[in-house]
Amino acid sequence: MQRIINDPDNVVDDAIKGYLRASPSLFAATDHPRVLKYPSSASDKVGIVTGGGSGHEPAFLGYIGEGMCDAVAIGEIFSSPTADAFLEAFRSAPHEQGVACLYGNYAGDNMNVKMAKQMAEMEDIEVKTVIARDDVASAPAAERDKRRGVAGEVMMWKIGGAAAARGDSLDEVIRLAQKAVDACSSIGVGLSSCTIPANGKPNFSIEPGHMELGIGHHGEPGIEVAPLTSAEAIATAMCDPVLADQDFAGSEVAVLISGLGATPVMELNILYAHIAERLEAADIRVHRTDIGNYFTSLEMMGATLTLMKLDDELKPLLDAPARSLAITQC
Amino acid sequence: MQRIINDPDNVVDDAIKGYLRASPSLFAATDHPRVLKYPSSASDKVGIVTGGGSGHEPAFLGYIGEGMCDAVAIGEIFSSPTADAFLEAFRSAPHEQGVACLYGNYAGDNMNVKMAKQMAEMEDIEVKTVIARDDVASAPAAERDKRRGVAGEVMMWKIGGAAAARGDSLDEVIRLAQKAVDACSSIGVGLSSCTIPANGKPNFSIEPGHMELGIGHHGEPGIEVAPLTSAEAIATAMCDPVLADQDFAGSEVAVLISGLGATPVMELNILYAHIAERLEAADIRVHRTDIGNYFTSLEMMGATLTLMKLDDELKPLLDAPARSLAITQC
Repeated sequence: MQRIINDPDNVVDDAIKGYLRASPSLFAATDHPRVLKYPSSASDKVGIVTGGGSGHEPAFLGYIGEGMCDAVAIGEIFSSPTADAFLEAFRSAPHEQGVACLYGNYAGDNMNVKMAKQMAEMEDIEVKTVIARDDVASAPAAERDKRRGVAGEVMMWKIGGAAAARGDSLDEVIRLAQKAVDACSSIGVGLSSCTIPANGKPNFSIEPGHMELGIGHHGEPGIEVAPLTSAEAIATAMCDPVLADQDFAGSEVAVLISGLGATPVMELNILYAHIAERLEAADIRVHRTDIGNYFTSLEMMGATLTLMKLDDELKPLLDAPARSLAITQC
Repeated sequence: MQRIINDPDNVVDDAIKGYLRASPSLFAATDHPRVLKYPSSASDKVGIVTGGGSGHEPAFLGYIGEGMCDAVAIGEIFSSPTADAFLEAFRSAPHEQGVACLYGNYAGDNMNVKMAKQMAEMEDIEVKTVIARDDVASAPAAERDKRRGVAGEVMMWKIGGAAAARGDSLDEVIRLAQKAVDACSSIGVGLSSCTIPANGKPNFSIEPGHMELGIGHHGEPGIEVAPLTSAEAIATAMCDPVLADQDFAGSEVAVLISGLGATPVMELNILYAHIAERLEAADIRVHRTDIGNYFTSLEMMGATLTLMKLDDELKPLLDAPARSLAITQC
C-alpha cells in the first residue's frame, strides 16, 4: 500500500488537521472533531449541510465555502458520519432560517441523518433534507428511490448553496436542490480498484483489460463487467443509459465529468470529446462542462458522467459565484 | 494499461479535442494543432507563453486564462513541444509588447524554445525567457543552472501572468517571473511509477514498500530510494533539503503541495499538517497554502512540496485575480 499516511486508522483525523492548517479562510473547527464549518457564513441565511464518508476528495470538505455548504459531517473512509456529527453540523451551520441537509442515498447516511434530524428538532433546529439519487446504474428510473447518489451531489450542493446565499427560504432551497438532483443522471465506469488504508488490501477487483460500467463510488457492483475498450466506445456505453434516463433532447445541459482519483485528466478530456459529439448528435446543447476530480474514490481509475438538464431557474444558480476548494467561480 | 484512450499514439490530439469542446471560453485553436491560446487576451499586454510535455495535467493547458498564460505549446507525453509549436505560441499570444516565455529547464524545451525565439525575431516578435529551476533534488544550489523545473513553474506563471495583466513591461514581467522562480525551492517524493500510453509499460519502477525522494516529474532519479515511512517522516525528509536551500527563517512563504496524479488529496493534507508544524517551528509564516493536483505525472503516486519566499512585491501578484482550469481566484 503506497500511501502518505501515519497510522492507517487515523487517516481522517490526520487529514482534517491538514485542511484546517491549509485553509483557515474556508475551514473552522467545531465542537465535534469530525465536523468542519465555513467560518464566514452569514447567520441569517438557510444553512447548507452535507456529509458522507471520506475518500471521495474533494467531496465533501471541498464543497464548504461561499455560496456552497456551511458545514460538513465527516465519516471514516467510505463510511457514514455518525448521527452526532450530523447534529453538530446542523448546529454549526446557520440555522435560524432552518437547515437544508443535502446528501447521498446510502443506508448509513440515511439512518444517521434521520436520527440527527430528530435530535435537532428537540433543539428547535428545523432540518429538511434532499437525498441525491442520480446514479442511473444503481436502479431503474421507476425505482429511483433505490438509486445511489454520486457526482450529481455536486450539482445539488451548488444549486442549493447558491439559493441559500441569495436569501431563499428553507422550502425554496429544498425545492431547488431537489429539482437540481432530479435533473441529474449519472453513471460511472471503473478501471481499477482502490485500497482503504485501514484494510490494506483492495476492497474489490477489476481484472486488467476489463472495466466495470455503472460501478458505485465505493466499488458497488455495476451493470456489466466488459473488456476495456476505446474511449469512444466507453463514451457510448456511458451516454446510452444516461440519455435514456430523461428526455434531454432539445434541452440545454450542464456536463460534469469527474475522475475517480487516479485517471489522468487528459483521459477525461479524451472521453469528453466523444461525449460532446454524442450530445450534439442528440440535439442537446451544452451550457457548461466541468472536467476534473470532483468526486473520487481514493485512487480508483475511472470516471463518472453527470448530465444535468437546465432551465432558466437552475442556470443562474449553477453559474452564481462560489468559493470553495473544489469550485471557485467569480 | 487501464486507460480511457483510443489509439495510444493519439492521446494528445484526442485530449486537445476535449479541452476545446469543454472550455471554449478558455481555449481557442491556432494555426498549429499543438498550440492553444486564450481567446480573450488583451492585445496590448505582454504575452505569456509556456509549453512542455503532456501528462502533467493540469499543466500546462490548465494555466491558460485570465491573469495567467496566453498560449501554450503542447508536446507529446513527457516530451518537449516542437520549435514550430513554440513559435506559433509566440505568434498566438499578444506580442506587440513582447512575449515572456516561462518554462522549465529540460534539454528539449531549451533547444526548441531557443530555435523558436530565433525564428520569432525574424518576424519582429521579441521573446524573453525565464527558465524554472526550482527542484532542489536535481542539483546543489551552487549548480542551480542544472536544476529541473517542477511545480515552482506554477508560481512563475501566476506571478508573470499577473504582472502582464496589470500592464507591466516585458522587462518587468521577466524580472518578476525570474524573481518568483528564484524564490521557489521544491522537492518531490514518488511512491509509484506511471505508464506512458504509447509505451504501455511503466517507464521506471519503485518497489512496493519504498519511496524515491527527489524524483523528477518524468521519473528522473532522485536523491535516495528509501523504505516507505510515515507521513510525518516523509514531511521531514522533504522539508530538510527545501529549508536548507534558502534562508526562509523569519520570512513569509506560499506553500504549494501538488499530488503527482494518483495520490488522494486526503494524503496531501496529512502530509501538509506535518509540514506546517515544521514551518512554524522554523519561524516561517505561511501566507497561503494550495493543496491539490497542480503538476502531475500521469498516474504516479507521490507529492511535491514547493516553498516560495514572499515579499511585498510578489504577494499581491500571487493573490491577484485569475481564471484558469487550475487556478481561479476572485
